[in-house]
Amino acid sequence: MNNSASDPLFLDDLHVGQRFTSATHTIDEAQIKAFAAQFDPQPFHADDQAARKTLFNGLAASGWHTAAITMRLNVESGLPLAGGIIGAGGEINWPAPTRPGDILHVESEVAEITPSRSKPDRGIALILSRTINQHGEVVQILKAKLVVPRRPAT
Amino acid sequence: MNNSASDPLFLDDLHVGQRFTSATHTIDEAQIKAFAAQFDPQPFHADDQAARKTLFNGLAASGWHTAAITMRLNVESGLPLAGGIIGAGGEINWPAPTRPGDILHVESEVAEITPSRSKPDRGIALILSRTINQHGEVVQILKAKLVVPRRPAT
Repeated sequence: MNNSASDPLFLDDLHVGQRFTSATHTIDEAQIKAFAAQFDPQPFHADDQAARKTLFNGLAASGWHTAAITMRLNVESGLPLAGGIIGAGGEINWPAPTRPGDILHVESEVAEITPSRSKPDRGIALILSRTINQHGEVVQILKAKLVVPRRPAT
Repeated sequence: MNNSASDPLFLDDLHVGQRFTSATHTIDEAQIKAFAAQFDPQPFHADDQAARKTLFNGLAASGWHTAAITMRLNVESGLPLAGGIIGAGGEINWPAPTRPGDILHVESEVAEITPSRSKPDRGIALILSRTINQHGEVVQILKAKLVVPRRPAT
């Protein structure tokens, strides 16, 4: 089952293996440089010539920029969770750089569902989100622990 | 030992337990709303009145905004690493919300140092960075795997 646009989902509506696919976002050099100037002012995120002499071998987006774009894609089109997307934390990896011109989308999968013992109105869903470029390369893997409300009794 | 401003450090210059403290950054409502509008458009990051009805009980910064500010503090004043701060990935947690008016700084500690087996010019440093507000509350814990160059032979 692939929910890309549907009613907001409560914890009770999720099941392990459930998948979601976001819309796409195209990142360009101006976006990469603007984010870098504000939050990650390092040569490999700010200047293509300088970036060629680094491990990145050319301009690459800050990993936090990729994370922020992933969040926007999941908020707007990827993960239709009741109450929104509220992360308690998670694991993040950047197996490949995000480059100017990349067209990113996010594929997410429910990995675990854990109702709270102390708070009966919510639980934690472990969601695995892969951010993927137009070549099918995974540029980010995020395993996020999200707080998801339970469906209110009616 | 507390290095807050010093020469760039190679992997060989690091030792487990070494600590670093960044300068501070004051976050305000305008910054929180601007980041939310661009990357995390959800009511608890965008509208104080709406946020009062949510789990956050008032306006809070996106966790990715806290992460981005943490990066800037570490790049500019926290972690003087040779070659810059290049993250392969890590674990991130947000134990408390970042609020308008918070004055954040980052305290980092070297947790592990692992020279690369395959690439003799570099290694991985596991760095634990705590982002702390003016009340001493930890708003983010990041365990980052950073790629750090070894000191070139001379």
